[in-house]
Amino acid sequence: MPEAYEQTLSNQTLHELTASLNRGMFVHVRNALHNMPACDVAFILESSPVKTRFAFWQLIDSEFHGEILEELSEDVRSSIVRQMMPEAVAEATEGMDTDDLAEILRSLPEHLYQEVLSSLDAQDRHRAEAALAYEEYSAGSVMNTDTVTIRPDVTVEVVLRYLRMRTNLPKNTDSLYVVDKDDVLIGDVSLIKLVASQPEVEIGQLMDTDVVAIPATMSESEAAQMFERHNWISAPVVNEQNHLLGRITIDDMVDIIREDAEHSMMSMVGLDDEEDTFAPVVQSTQKRSIWLGVNLITALLAATVSNFFEDVLSQLAVLAILNTIVPSMGGVAGNQTLTLVIRAIALGQVLPSNTRSLLIKELTIGLLNGLIWALLIAGIVGIWKQDLTLAAIIAFAMLMNMVAAGISGVTIPLILKKFNIDPALAGSVILTTVTDIVGIFAFLGSASLFLM
Amino acid sequence: MPEAYEQTLSNQTLHELTASLNRGMFVHVRNALHNMPACDVAFILESSPVKTRFAFWQLIDSEFHGEILEELSEDVRSSIVRQMMPEAVAEATEGMDTDDLAEILRSLPEHLYQEVLSSLDAQDRHRAEAALAYEEYSAGSVMNTDTVTIRPDVTVEVVLRYLRMRTNLPKNTDSLYVVDKDDVLIGDVSLIKLVASQPEVEIGQLMDTDVVAIPATMSESEAAQMFERHNWISAPVVNEQNHLLGRITIDDMVDIIREDAEHSMMSMVGLDDEEDTFAPVVQSTQKRSIWLGVNLITALLAATVSNFFEDVLSQLAVLAILNTIVPSMGGVAGNQTLTLVIRAIALGQVLPSNTRSLLIKELTIGLLNGLIWALLIAGIVGIWKQDLTLAAIIAFAMLMNMVAAGISGVTIPLILKKFNIDPALAGSVILTTVTDIVGIFAFLGSASLFLM
Repeated sequence: MPEAYEQTLSNQTLHELTASLNRGMFVHVRNALHNMPACDVAFILESSPVKTRFAFWQLIDSEFHGEILEELSEDVRSSIVRQMMPEAVAEATEGMDTDDLAEILRSLPEHLYQEVLSSLDAQDRHRAEAALAYEEYSAGSVMNTDTVTIRPDVTVEVVLRYLRMRTNLPKNTDSLYVVDKDDVLIGDVSLIKLVASQPEVEIGQLMDTDVVAIPATMSESEAAQMFERHNWISAPVVNEQNHLLGRITIDDMVDIIREDAEHSMMSMVGLDDEEDTFAPVVQSTQKRSIWLGVNLITALLAATVSNFFEDVLSQLAVLAILNTIVPSMGGVAGNQTLTLVIRAIALGQVLPSNTRSLLIKELTIGLLNGLIWALLIAGIVGIWKQDLTLAAIIAFAMLMNMVAAGISGVTIPLILKKFNIDPALAGSVILTTVTDIVGIFAFLGSASLFLM
Repeated sequence: MPEAYEQTLSNQTLHELTASLNRGMFVHVRNALHNMPACDVAFILESSPVKTRFAFWQLIDSEFHGEILEELSEDVRSSIVRQMMPEAVAEATEGMDTDDLAEILRSLPEHLYQEVLSSLDAQDRHRAEAALAYEEYSAGSVMNTDTVTIRPDVTVEVVLRYLRMRTNLPKNTDSLYVVDKDDVLIGDVSLIKLVASQPEVEIGQLMDTDVVAIPATMSESEAAQMFERHNWISAPVVNEQNHLLGRITIDDMVDIIREDAEHSMMSMVGLDDEEDTFAPVVQSTQKRSIWLGVNLITALLAATVSNFFEDVLSQLAVLAILNTIVPSMGGVAGNQTLTLVIRAIALGQVLPSNTRSLLIKELTIGLLNGLIWALLIAGIVGIWKQDLTLAAIIAFAMLMNMVAAGISGVTIPLILKKFNIDPALAGSVILTTVTDIVGIFAFLGSASLFLM
């Protein structure tokens, strides 16, 4: 009988396993882990704090270590691999998919790397070295070399006989690649087409010659975008001479699509590389400190701007009280525009031809927003502080800052991109600096002109 | 010859097409669009401002409208469909995948919805109504009903003969589903296994009975997480009696995986539903206003807190100048924790059993960060303002606020989740309110105690 969903991993399971572990019921935990699919064990490891994670890992029979490592996310995987003996790593990675093997080797510190590499058997070492020859994050580094290739002059029947002899096809094979005698890719035949064809038809007549191949040097993110756009299950990878090198499958691309989408969100608060929710404290503090340091500089910059207006501030405490409102609203409005533009850049939607429309659109929104919130804040301040000049001043500052927010939200990420700086990483902090400074200048500046 | 990547859509193409459109070279644009795959035309429409988008759309022959609509993202698709005549929509959706057809109908305003539904031919209307019977965003609403089912008592040879007769298998078929006479799912056979098996083997012996089926009532996001975790290409959908209803394929899930990952980022700045980069100005302004309104309230709250300390502020302008630093640092540190926790919740990693570890971890980071930045800001203020008491006061406020940021970053999203409020949507604004108020209270409060 097929498994009902209820029998697969639930959060309840994880809760119970952690409780059992804490109560020292190791045999129970070991048995439970052994009866689970590797992907569920991987999920449990990813959802556990570091100590619990290692405790679980040690209860898992080493013969399953390989398949579980394959399922883990990069950060969590390397946190485990770094604790293992080189021989144990070599053993666990035996026969692993080329891309996972290369990724594990890349995550190791230099001395372990060499040791593990030399402990691999000849075939795995050869495969790993081939994958490591491609740059990290390139299509070549995530491809698998286990493709099934056929020649155009054979018939469907011959191919089917050949497949029956092989008995085992690589995971997620949906197409066979047709190559000439020099291994140049000339087309593909989907399994769907193959099984639905008459036995005597020749592959040359059946094959699809429109197949789009991915160059091994393309970035994995670009390749993932192509998978997403074209709804591919797998795609062939070729070198510059169009020689077939391997194939990429959708399951590896799904991880990259998710990581790329998450990347912007994480980068915007400076968590760029912190993929592991339960990373050790010192490691996390270090990673986050850079961002806090940058923010301290911007906060000090804003304080310096306020410092210019010490005179007016010392005479009118009400300005100190209202001084944070305009920068705060500008920051939020600017970050809305910025987030939208960062996402559009990530999707490849922002181009020279439509930048102007985007800028005009966001500028208009900034003006509209500026008018709405200027009127509202003028009303509130007018009633609260019974001062019409003050109300006019804060309204003017709000309008200025909203327009500045709209312009900065579009231009800052575009400028950063031009200089090859990740807009998600640096955009938000630069934008906030701009909206803080413009907001404070507009508010305190006009206050010192009209209220003194 | 297989297409090289250079011949597929590049940003250059989009740039040239927009230029040609602006120069009025309609025939050229029309021909170019006709020679492109539907997914590339969809990309061009998504990357164009509203006016250009409609200009392109009108140049596309109506017989291609259907396949292009299938490739468009939801927001962009509904912006186009709302401009079309009901008959044109009905014509374009003829024979479309059930899930896309249902989604298009759902995006229509009520009066158009009925008109389009009644213009559909009987078969499409029947399929659409079946899909519409499932709740929006449920697995049932995204499934396709075009499954290939076989019985367990036939041989591989019979199945292959049957497939040859059908000649055309549904897109992305990687498995055939094995059902009994009541249509109850009892297993599946992958195409890979089928082509690699001897003709005389019976399906009952070959089939995999461990197949995990998705209940039609499961949410599409949960289903997408299962696809991601299990590396599926397709999965069967069943009702409560385990009757096979249809199947879901990875290409539809990839969109949901991306949308879910982006959702948190967009929500955090209140852009929840704005998927269309080039949405009209008024629509965008409205959507963003809610968020700005909420922020205005928090900014006013913070101003009210400062208002309590009007006395000390009016005597010491330096406090007004430094007043923004501590809230700003607390806001950044808190948002780092918040973003991490929101992502972990989205991935299903946060559970009662590990909440305590997470809280202790973030609290410790808060303390460590607090100490580091308290010392640094004390040094800076001590040197800048030549006032050791002031330096001690700002250091104390910094430490307090960093700890508050760590605690709030973990607890706020968890509490929101308990009350079924999206933590990504409301978390950031509540957290910032907390760090603003704690920061101002700690700084101005201790200043009024020790400096007056």
